Amino acid sequence: MYNFQFSNPTKIVFGKGQIQNIGQEIDSSHRVLLMYGGGSIKKNGVYQQVIESLSNHDLVEFSGVEPNPSLETLSKAIELVESKGIDYILAVGGGSVIDGAKFVAAAAKFEGDDPWDILAKGAKVVSALPLSCILTLPATGTESNGNSVITKRSTQDKLPFSSPHVYPQVAILDPSVTFSLPPRQVANGVVDAFVHTIEQYLTYDVNAPVQDRFAEGLLSTLIEEGPKALSEPDNYDVRANIMWAATMALNGLIGVGVPQDWATHGIGHEITALHGLDHAQTLAIVLPSLMREKKEHKAAKLLQFGRRVWGITEGSDDAIIEQAIAKTAAFFEEMGVPTTLSGYGIEASAIDALVAQMEKHKLHAMGEHKDINPDVARRILENAA
Amino acid sequence: MYNFQFSNPTKIVFGKGQIQNIGQEIDSSHRVLLMYGGGSIKKNGVYQQVIESLSNHDLVEFSGVEPNPSLETLSKAIELVESKGIDYILAVGGGSVIDGAKFVAAAAKFEGDDPWDILAKGAKVVSALPLSCILTLPATGTESNGNSVITKRSTQDKLPFSSPHVYPQVAILDPSVTFSLPPRQVANGVVDAFVHTIEQYLTYDVNAPVQDRFAEGLLSTLIEEGPKALSEPDNYDVRANIMWAATMALNGLIGVGVPQDWATHGIGHEITALHGLDHAQTLAIVLPSLMREKKEHKAAKLLQFGRRVWGITEGSDDAIIEQAIAKTAAFFEEMGVPTTLSGYGIEASAIDALVAQMEKHKLHAMGEHKDINPDVARRILENAA
Repeated sequence: MYNFQFSNPTKIVFGKGQIQNIGQEIDSSHRVLLMYGGGSIKKNGVYQQVIESLSNHDLVEFSGVEPNPSLETLSKAIELVESKGIDYILAVGGGSVIDGAKFVAAAAKFEGDDPWDILAKGAKVVSALPLSCILTLPATGTESNGNSVITKRSTQDKLPFSSPHVYPQVAILDPSVTFSLPPRQVANGVVDAFVHTIEQYLTYDVNAPVQDRFAEGLLSTLIEEGPKALSEPDNYDVRANIMWAATMALNGLIGVGVPQDWATHGIGHEITALHGLDHAQTLAIVLPSLMREKKEHKAAKLLQFGRRVWGITEGSDDAIIEQAIAKTAAFFEEMGVPTTLSGYGIEASAIDALVAQMEKHKLHAMGEHKDINPDVARRILENAA
Repeated sequence: MYNFQFSNPTKIVFGKGQIQNIGQEIDSSHRVLLMYGGGSIKKNGVYQQVIESLSNHDLVEFSGVEPNPSLETLSKAIELVESKGIDYILAVGGGSVIDGAKFVAAAAKFEGDDPWDILAKGAKVVSALPLSCILTLPATGTESNGNSVITKRSTQDKLPFSSPHVYPQVAILDPSVTFSLPPRQVANGVVDAFVHTIEQYLTYDVNAPVQDRFAEGLLSTLIEEGPKALSEPDNYDVRANIMWAATMALNGLIGVGVPQDWATHGIGHEITALHGLDHAQTLAIVLPSLMREKKEHKAAKLLQFGRRVWGITEGSDDAIIEQAIAKTAAFFEEMGVPTTLSGYGIEASAIDALVAQMEKHKLHAMGEHKDINPDVARRILENAA
C-alpha cells in the first residue's frame, strides 16, 4: 500500500424526508445563493421543500445551470454573488449543478484576474464560499468531494479542478427524489459510478485488499441494483443502494493508497466537448476498449475483477479476462448506454479531431503508468468505433 | 436502508515515516499534553520521533496509562491539564491511551461536579480539548471515532461514552511501528476489529448491500492477513492492511443505515471488569456462543456470512451456518485467542457474578432486537464455559 492522507469533512444526511431539514443545517445569518438547473426540482417537490425549510434565510435564486455547466452561465452567477453580497451557496440538483456551485464558490474568492485560470492554468484555490448541496441525481460523487468539471463553450474546453475548499459542508441525499428521474439519467449515473470505481481499482497490482474489496463491493452493487432501478423505478432500497454506492465511489475512500487510472475520463471529456454526448455515454465508449488496450498491464487485476465481480470461474486466464470485459460492455448496453462511437452516430473520421484536442490539452501521460498518450487514445477510440 | 447521518472529521495520515510529521499537524501555539502508556514507545523509536517533531512545542508528558485505562490514573492527567494550562492532547499508543486521552479531553471541559458522570450517568459532553493521536496498535478504531471506554477500578465498572467532540483531529498510522508488537497484542487487535465488523453486520436482514460488502471485505481481509501478521511479523503490507481494516471497522462507515448488535461488547466488558482478561479475549469467548444463541434471528445473515466470507458452498442452510460459526471460533483459536471461559481458567461458577454485573449496569436490552438480557447472556456464557 502507498502512503496516503485521507479526510472527508462533508456531513452526509441520508434518507427519506431529509430535505426539509436543510434550513437547520445552514446558519440563518447567511445570505444564500440557491443554484439549480432546468426546473425539474419544481416538478418533483424538492424546490418547495427547500424554500419552506429556508423560510428564515435571506435567499437569492440562480436557475438554469445546464448539463456540463459552462463558464458562460456560471459567470452570471458569480456576478450575482458579488452584486447581492452572497456568502453561502446551496446547490440543488445533480453533478452539473453541484460542480457549477463549486466553481462559483471558488471564483467568488479568487484573487487572480480570471477565475477560468483555476481550470486552464491550475491556479490555486486558497479559499471559497461555504457550500452545501441537495443531491437529486446519484452519479458523480461530487456531493462529498472537492472535484468539479467545467466547460468553456467558446473554446470547447472541458476541464477539471480540485480543492479541499470546495467540499460541500452538508450533503442531503434523499433516494426517493430519484424515483422521477428519466431512465437515461438513471443509467448514466450507474455507469458513471461504475467507471469511477474501476478507475481507482483496475490498475496494476498493489497489495491493498481492503480497497480492492470495497471497490468490488460497489461494482457488484451497481451491477445488481442498476437494472432494477430501470425495471422497478419506485423501489426505495434500490435507489438508496445506488445513491450510496455512487457517493462511496468517489469520496476519496476507495482510492487511498493505490494507483489510479483516470484515462477513461480524460478521453471521455473530449468526446463530450466536441460531440455533446452525456458524460457517462463517453465513459461507456472508452472503458471496455481501454481495458482491452491495457490488458497485459492490468492482467492480474482484470482476472480478479472477472472472478470476484463477475463470478467467472471457468476458463483460461485470458478467457476470463475477455469475458469480464465483454460482460462489462454488456452491462452498459443493458442499462441502455451504447459502448461504441457509432452507437451515437459518430463516425470514425471524427477521431482525428478528438486526438487533436488531447494534444491541445497535453494529455500525454494518462493512466497509472502514465503511458496512455494521444496515440494510444487513438487506438482505444478506433477499437471503439 | 435506514435513514442516517454520517461524518468523520479525523484526518488520517497513513504510512511509513509519517510520525515525524506530527509537529506540522499541531499549531505550535498549543501547550500539549503528551500521553502514553508503559514505555514501549521509547523502545520502538516512536517516542524519539515525536519529541523531535514537537521540538518547537511546549510539551508536558504524562505516562503510565494502563490497559483498560482507569479513572484513577486519568484523574492525575486531568489535574495536570489544569495545573499546567494544557490546551491540546496528543495520545501516542493503542486504544487504551487514546481512549484515556478522550476522557481527559472531555473531563477538562466538563462543567459538572464529577467527570465520571459522563460514563455513569450519561452526562453530556458539550466540548473537549482538541486531541490528535499516533496509533501504535491497530484494534479498536478509536483513532477515528468519538468512542471511549474507561474503567473505574474502585467499583470494577467498565463503561463507554461517545461524543462528536472527542474525534481525534489528526491520526497518524504508521504500520511499521507495529512490527515489534507482541503476538498476543497483534492477535487481540485482529479479533477486536473482526468483532467490531460483525457487530455492525451480523444482524437481521436490512437491504444494504454496500454496507454488507464493505463489512465482508474487512472480515475477509482480517481472516487472510491476521495469521500472516503472526507468521511474517515484518511484512509491511500485511501490517498496513490490518491497520487500515481495523480503522475502517469502527469509524462509523460500515454501520450507517443498518441495525447493530453490540451485545458481545456489552457482555465482554463485564468479563474484563471482573477477571482482567484482555478486551479481545472476552469478545472471542462471547461471539461464537452469541451466534449460536441468536441463530434463528440472524439466520439469513449468518448464511450470507458463511457463503461470502468463509466460501462455504455445500450443505444445508443450517450446516452452512454451523460451519461458519465453527470457522469463526477456529480463526480466533488460530490467532492464539481461546474461545471459552475455561480457556482462561475461569470456572462456570463465575457466571453468576457476571450476570449480576449486567443487572447492575441495566443491560436488559442488548442486541439489534433488544432481546438479549442478563438471562440470555447467562445462556451465552454457559455455552461458552
